[in-house]
Amino acid sequence: MVRYDIAIVGTGPAGLEAAITAKVRNKNIILFGSAASSEKVFKAHAVRNYLGLPEVTGENMQKAFLSHLKAMEIEITEAKAVLIYPMGDYFSIMSSKGNYEASSVIVAAGTAPAKTYPGENEYLGRGVSYCATCDAALYKGKKTAIIGFSPEEEAEADFMTEYASEVLYFPMYKEEVKVRPEVTVIREKPVSIEGRLKVGKLVTDAGEYEVDGVFILRSSVAPSQLIPGLEMDGGHVKTDRRMATSIEGCFACGDITGPPYQYIKAAGEGNVAALSAVSWLDQKRRSAQEQAE
Amino acid sequence: MVRYDIAIVGTGPAGLEAAITAKVRNKNIILFGSAASSEKVFKAHAVRNYLGLPEVTGENMQKAFLSHLKAMEIEITEAKAVLIYPMGDYFSIMSSKGNYEASSVIVAAGTAPAKTYPGENEYLGRGVSYCATCDAALYKGKKTAIIGFSPEEEAEADFMTEYASEVLYFPMYKEEVKVRPEVTVIREKPVSIEGRLKVGKLVTDAGEYEVDGVFILRSSVAPSQLIPGLEMDGGHVKTDRRMATSIEGCFACGDITGPPYQYIKAAGEGNVAALSAVSWLDQKRRSAQEQAE
Repeated sequence: MVRYDIAIVGTGPAGLEAAITAKVRNKNIILFGSAASSEKVFKAHAVRNYLGLPEVTGENMQKAFLSHLKAMEIEITEAKAVLIYPMGDYFSIMSSKGNYEASSVIVAAGTAPAKTYPGENEYLGRGVSYCATCDAALYKGKKTAIIGFSPEEEAEADFMTEYASEVLYFPMYKEEVKVRPEVTVIREKPVSIEGRLKVGKLVTDAGEYEVDGVFILRSSVAPSQLIPGLEMDGGHVKTDRRMATSIEGCFACGDITGPPYQYIKAAGEGNVAALSAVSWLDQKRRSAQEQAE
Repeated sequence: MVRYDIAIVGTGPAGLEAAITAKVRNKNIILFGSAASSEKVFKAHAVRNYLGLPEVTGENMQKAFLSHLKAMEIEITEAKAVLIYPMGDYFSIMSSKGNYEASSVIVAAGTAPAKTYPGENEYLGRGVSYCATCDAALYKGKKTAIIGFSPEEEAEADFMTEYASEVLYFPMYKEEVKVRPEVTVIREKPVSIEGRLKVGKLVTDAGEYEVDGVFILRSSVAPSQLIPGLEMDGGHVKTDRRMATSIEGCFACGDITGPPYQYIKAAGEGNVAALSAVSWLDQKRRSAQEQAE
């Protein structure tokens, strides 16, 4: 398996800036996220305080960012990172498009989801999953519920029908749902996940559904679930001024590290995170060489 | 005297971003520095990692920054801030163009000078000065030495001849010096400042000069001299993640806070510093209102 120097999670301003800075420093990177950059950028009406881009619309900012990426020959891997596990010498990254390895990680996954469902943390890995593509095969012939936070998740529900005997889809958005006829669309608000040793049912504001698995497909995974053991500060990843987190070799930047939620702040932190990752990698290489001598 | 909400010192990326963010938040600001933005920006060959401005030359980056400023109707006050003094309820700012007042201060003055001359700190205010315009009148009929770190300082030497009986000018650059005939240009390297209670002489690598005053005109004043009492961390201003310094109401951003010395990092910090200053001002206003009620 290719071992990347730096895996970057997120394609908002923080992740993109981290990617271009790491590339300038000749690092072998993999960048996970939406190829359209962040939805938040795209939907902004006008941004007045991104120095150098006066009165820019969200759409034009997105174009400027993506053309910068293109000029640097950086590609976006359109996959959702679901679990990043520190393996000692490297990080193992489980994504919706398979597994990857990287020597260091930069988390730029944007604001963390407001809150988790009761039972979500408790049953994570015992019926609760964040990735249908990863875990669908475990639910062959079983009943599953999928909570989708954006229309993009509908493909996951369709895919699930190839394994599960029953797929209930709970859209958390207003747009019309277009899924295969085998998927049952339920417009109710999930309230909690219950069970005994494993998930037994999904409770909504209007009823209860007996299921073996609940897939919660948010646009981003909570940082503490993405990287087990990551120290948080309130709802945000705790970092120092060099954007280092509590896990060696793991850096964070952008909205995920806390307010202000601003594009240029995120980009600035992405730059710092990338340079910190680069110097951490250099240091590691040097100490490995010294030990070998 | 006008009391500005925020005084911003420095027109590099940090200071400019702080200014536009403060302006977006409707604050009454004054921005001190070179109208051409920072020389460092202007002289950069090509910057590859300022997200949104791919492969930009220093000159074009400068143009983008200054046109952003123009679009926001922000003016640069071309003056060098020499001393910022916390007065309790506001800051008093002594500059080469007179005195100003502001409720809060953002220091974005760039990298601090490498080191001071022996005797410089000791005789500061007792013969050592950083501002000819401010202090020239104190040297009527006296002998002065001016150490100029850029051709811009030549005007200060010319001005000094209107007061001092003797003006020795030590250029710290290679360009030809164009000063009034009354100014004696000496191409020697100053080594130390000596004296008893007050400055007595300037010692160079080639001789000694008896003077009553030594004016050291660097592009920026050391932060701890600019703002007495400011806590440093090595050669940099100590800040927290909100860019707050050890002095309440005083924030810092950009190269002055330490590496990496990068444009986008500086701009990002400028944004954070401005928003922190804004929320500090709001908080101060609210608590003043509460006390009045």
